Amino acid sequence: MDSVVPGAPAHLKALVEKHQPTLAAALHAVQTRISWSPYKDSPSTKIHGPDKPVQGKAAYEKHLGQRYTIDQPGIISWTGAETSPYTGKALGIEYPVSDPAALIKAAKTALQSWRKVAPDVRVALCLEIAQRLYDRNFEMAHSVMHVTGQSYVQAFSGSGPNALDRGVEALAYAAKAMADVQPTATWQRPFGKDNVVLDKVYTLMPRGVGVVICCASFPTWNAYPAIFANLATGNPSIVKPHPIAILPMAIVVEVCRQTLTDYGFDPNVVTLAVDTLDVPVAQKFIDDPAVQIIDFTGSPRYGGHLERTITGKLLFTETAGVNSVVIESVADLKATATALARSTSLFSAQMCTSPQTIFVPKNGIPNGAGHASFNDVAQALKDAVDEIVADPATAAGIMGAIQGQVSLDVIARLKTALTSKPTAKIVRDATAYAHPDFPNARTLTPLIVAVDQSCVDLYAEEQFGPVLFIVAVDSADAAVKDATKLAATHGAISSYLYSTDEAFIARSTEAYEEAGANLSINLHGAMWINFAAAYSDYHVTGLNPAGNACLTDLAFVASRFRIVQRRRPANS
Amino acid sequence: MDSVVPGAPAHLKALVEKHQPTLAAALHAVQTRISWSPYKDSPSTKIHGPDKPVQGKAAYEKHLGQRYTIDQPGIISWTGAETSPYTGKALGIEYPVSDPAALIKAAKTALQSWRKVAPDVRVALCLEIAQRLYDRNFEMAHSVMHVTGQSYVQAFSGSGPNALDRGVEALAYAAKAMADVQPTATWQRPFGKDNVVLDKVYTLMPRGVGVVICCASFPTWNAYPAIFANLATGNPSIVKPHPIAILPMAIVVEVCRQTLTDYGFDPNVVTLAVDTLDVPVAQKFIDDPAVQIIDFTGSPRYGGHLERTITGKLLFTETAGVNSVVIESVADLKATATALARSTSLFSAQMCTSPQTIFVPKNGIPNGAGHASFNDVAQALKDAVDEIVADPATAAGIMGAIQGQVSLDVIARLKTALTSKPTAKIVRDATAYAHPDFPNARTLTPLIVAVDQSCVDLYAEEQFGPVLFIVAVDSADAAVKDATKLAATHGAISSYLYSTDEAFIARSTEAYEEAGANLSINLHGAMWINFAAAYSDYHVTGLNPAGNACLTDLAFVASRFRIVQRRRPANS
Repeated sequence: MDSVVPGAPAHLKALVEKHQPTLAAALHAVQTRISWSPYKDSPSTKIHGPDKPVQGKAAYEKHLGQRYTIDQPGIISWTGAETSPYTGKALGIEYPVSDPAALIKAAKTALQSWRKVAPDVRVALCLEIAQRLYDRNFEMAHSVMHVTGQSYVQAFSGSGPNALDRGVEALAYAAKAMADVQPTATWQRPFGKDNVVLDKVYTLMPRGVGVVICCASFPTWNAYPAIFANLATGNPSIVKPHPIAILPMAIVVEVCRQTLTDYGFDPNVVTLAVDTLDVPVAQKFIDDPAVQIIDFTGSPRYGGHLERTITGKLLFTETAGVNSVVIESVADLKATATALARSTSLFSAQMCTSPQTIFVPKNGIPNGAGHASFNDVAQALKDAVDEIVADPATAAGIMGAIQGQVSLDVIARLKTALTSKPTAKIVRDATAYAHPDFPNARTLTPLIVAVDQSCVDLYAEEQFGPVLFIVAVDSADAAVKDATKLAATHGAISSYLYSTDEAFIARSTEAYEEAGANLSINLHGAMWINFAAAYSDYHVTGLNPAGNACLTDLAFVASRFRIVQRRRPANS
Repeated sequence: MDSVVPGAPAHLKALVEKHQPTLAAALHAVQTRISWSPYKDSPSTKIHGPDKPVQGKAAYEKHLGQRYTIDQPGIISWTGAETSPYTGKALGIEYPVSDPAALIKAAKTALQSWRKVAPDVRVALCLEIAQRLYDRNFEMAHSVMHVTGQSYVQAFSGSGPNALDRGVEALAYAAKAMADVQPTATWQRPFGKDNVVLDKVYTLMPRGVGVVICCASFPTWNAYPAIFANLATGNPSIVKPHPIAILPMAIVVEVCRQTLTDYGFDPNVVTLAVDTLDVPVAQKFIDDPAVQIIDFTGSPRYGGHLERTITGKLLFTETAGVNSVVIESVADLKATATALARSTSLFSAQMCTSPQTIFVPKNGIPNGAGHASFNDVAQALKDAVDEIVADPATAAGIMGAIQGQVSLDVIARLKTALTSKPTAKIVRDATAYAHPDFPNARTLTPLIVAVDQSCVDLYAEEQFGPVLFIVAVDSADAAVKDATKLAATHGAISSYLYSTDEAFIARSTEAYEEAGANLSINLHGAMWINFAAAYSDYHVTGLNPAGNACLTDLAFVASRFRIVQRRRPANS
C-alpha cells in the first residue's frame, strides 16, 4: 500500500499514525480469527460514565420533529415517514431528497480527487469515521431502536460496536488487498545482447461509484463493511437507506461528510439517497453507467431481481434464507431449548441469523442418559420461551419490538394456513408481551408450531415474522438431508446442529459444506448462538441463495479496485 | 493454505516438495514484480540439445490425419477442421465430441473428490502439469504454429514458457488467496460470567464447474491462467477451444488428464469440449446451473454478449480494443519507427497488444536536435517495415502467417473504404511476403495508411488484420485526448507513448490512468514493445471495454472459491 508521501500535510500523517495501531490489530485479528475489538459493546455506565447515555438519548430526541440537515448537492424536497415500533408515533424527521443525477454527478467529481488520496490515508480516514460513530453510539442506539425495533441493549451493541467491527474488518481486508500491489518495481532481463531495465508504476484505481442499499431491520451492520470497503479502495458511496429506517444512516452520512470535510476532502465521497416506499429510487442509481458497485442488503425479492438482472457491475448481496436446526441428541435438553429459545426470541426473529425450522426425529432423541420424546422437545422450547416472556424486562431486552405490521400479518396468515393442516399443532401461540417502558410497543412472542412434512410449504419458506417450526422427521440423518437441501435451495445464513454423537457430527459436516451452510454445533450458554463475531466468523458463504457478500474475505474487496500500470526504460 | 495432511500418501507429499521451490519463487516474483521464469523461452538447441526439437516436430506430425484420442465421458462423434495457414492444407485431425451434459455431469462428480484434495497438492499438481507441458513444448510449438499462424519462434516462446508463466503466476495468486484463510482457529471472549471458547474450522469450497473458452490466435496464453486458477481452487475446468485451433488445447487436456490420473485423481477434473463453427456449443455450458465460472478470450462480439447477459456467475473476459500510440517527440525517429514496425509486424498484428492507431501531430515532431514532419514519421515507419520484409527469414520469424481468410478480407474491405476518403494516403500497401519455408503460407505485411480525423470510423474500430493508421492530429495533447477516449470507449490492452518532454509525459499519465489504459513509454530496442511479462506486467485493467480478466491480481482468483465455516465449543 502506498504510504503517505513524504510531502503530505502533517494532519494526514498524524491521522495515519493515530489509527495505525488499530489497523495493525485488525489485520492481526482477521489473520488469526481471534476475538478482538477496539470498542466496548456494553452500554454500561461503568464503561462510559454517567453522562454519555443521557447525552446520547438527548441527541436522539433532538432530531425528532426536525429537518435533518445534510448539505449535499441537488436537494429537491424533504421527506420522512419513520414510525417508532415502541411508541407507535411518527418520528417526524424530514430528510433531504436529492436528485439522483446530482448525487451521481457529485460522486463522479469526488472520485477524481478521492482516488488520488493515498490508500493508507483513505483507510485511516475510515477508522476516524468509525471512531466518531462509536463516540455517538448512544445517540445511534436510540435511533436504531426507534426505527427498527431492536432492544436498547442490542441496538447499542449489535448496531454499534459489532457493526463497526464488521466495517473495520472490511477495512483490514481492503488494506491487505491494496498492500498486495507493489506501487513500483524495477524489472530487468536480457533480450539477446540488450539488458532491458524497466521502471514500472502500478496505480490503484477505484472501480466507480458505489451504491449501498441498506436493509430496514439492521441497517448499519452490512452498510459499514460496504461503505468502508468502497471508501478505502477509492470509490465514493451513495448510501440509500430503507425508507422506514433512514435516521441511523443519516447519522452515518453526516459523520462521514464531516470527517471528510475536516480533513480537507470532498464531502461528496459519501452522500445520502433518500426515497419513499411509493417512489423507490434504487434502480435509477443501479442503472447509471457511473455506478459500478452495488451492495444490497434486504429482501430476497428485490435482491433476487438484482442478481438476475445486473451485468458487468460488481454486485454484493445479502438477502435471507431459512435457517435450520437439527437436533439429533442432547446432553441437556433444557440447555439446548434455552439456547434456541433465546436465539429465536432475539429481536423477535427479525435477524438474518435467526433459526426458523427445527428438525427433530419423530421418535425422539437421546437426552443425556435418558430419552426425550418429540413432544418433550417441543415442550422444552415452549417452556424456555415462557421463561423469557415471564420477566418483562428480560423479554424487552431480548425481543425488542416488531418493526413492521407486515410481520404481524405474516404470523396471522400463517395461523390461518395452519388451520388447514390437520397434523400441525400450535405449541405456543404468538402473543404480544407488555413492554415495561413502552406500553404501545408493537410486540409479539414467537409462534411455536409442531408440524410434519405435510407443512413443507410453510416451514421451507422464509417467514418474516417470529415463528419456530418444529418438524418431525424420520431420523436425524433425514433431518440433515432436509436441512441442507433447504439451505441449498432457499438459502441459509446460519445453520445449527445439536448432537452428542461424534460419528453423526462427522458424517453431517460434509452435507453442510456442500450446501454452503455455515454451521454452529452444540452451542449453549451466554453467547447468543446466532452471534456472528467480526474478524472471526465468515458471514454469508455465497454458495447458496442467501447472497454472496462474505463479511469479510478477499473476494469482498479485491474487485473493488483495479490496477493500471505504466512502464518505461529505467533512468530515462 | 492447508498443508498436506500428515497421513497423506507419500507420492503426494513428494509432489508438493518437488514443486515447492517453484511456487516460492513465483510468490516472490509476483510480490516484487521482478523478471523470473522457471522455463527457457528460446528454442535453441544450446539449451535443449539436438534431439528435443526433432522429436517435438515428429510428435506434432504424428497427430496429422489421425484421431486425437482423449478417453473422456459422453463421446458421441468425432470432428476437426483445422487448416495450417502455412501449408494451406487440412491437418486432418479428428477430436472426440462429447455430449455437453455428460461433460458437466462428469465435472460435477469430479468436483466432489477434487475439492477435498489439499490446496497445496492441487497447486503442486498444476505445477506438475506445467512442467509436463514445458517438456512437450517443441510439439506444442509446431501445433500452435500450424493452427494459428504464429511463427515457430513465437509459438515456442509466447505460447510456451511465456504462457506457462502466466499460468504459474495465476497459481501463485490462487495459493496466496487460499493461504489467507486460516484452516482453523480458537476464539474466546467473555459473555457475562461465561468464558466462551470456540473451535472454528474454515473450509475452502470451490465455486462450481468452470468453462474456459479459448481464442483462436493465442489459445494457451489466456487458458493456462484460467485453468490453473480453477484447478488450484478446486473447480474442474471444461476447456472449449476455438474450432480452428483445437490441437494445442487437446494436448493441454491430455496432459492434465494424464497427470491427474498418474496421481490418483479423477481425470474428469479437466475435459475437452470440441465444437464446430456451424454448431457452437459454448452457450450450453454457460447456461447450465452447475457452471459457475466462465473464462472467455475471443471476439468483442461474443464476449460483449456474455458481459451483457451473464448474471450470478463469475465471468472473466479478454476481448480486444484499439491499441494506440501517441508520438509527441522522439530522440531518434528511426529507433521509434523500428520499435513500432516490429511490434505491429509481430504475428501480423494478430495480438491483443498490437498497436493499430498512431497519433502524430500534423505539424511534425521534435526528433533529437532536429524536427521530423508528419510525412517523415510515416516514411520512417514504412522504411522500418520494408527492412523487416526485405529479409524473408526475418519476416517469417516476426510476421508468421495470417490465421484466417477473414483478416485478408478485413484489409481488402479497408482498402475499398479508403478509396472514398480523399485525405487518406496509403503509405505502404499490404502485400504477401514469400515465406522461405512454406511457399503456400497465407502472409500479409501491414497496411500503413496516413489519415486525418475524417477516417475516425476506420481507425477507431478494431480491425482484425495487419494495419497501422497514422493519424494527423492538431497537437500531442489532442492526441492523448483522442487515444485515451478511444481506450475508454473501445477498449485498449496496451497503449504506447513516445516523448522526450517530461512535463508532457507527466500531464498525460493521468488521462491514461483514468481510461484504464496500461501504458508503455519510450520503449525501444530488443524487447518487443508489446511484450507483457508474467509476474510483472498486469494485463487487462478491467476499466475499459477490453475485458476484466487481469492477469493476474487477487481479483482474478479470490472469487473462485468460497469459505464455509463451522464452530463448536472447544474441547467438547
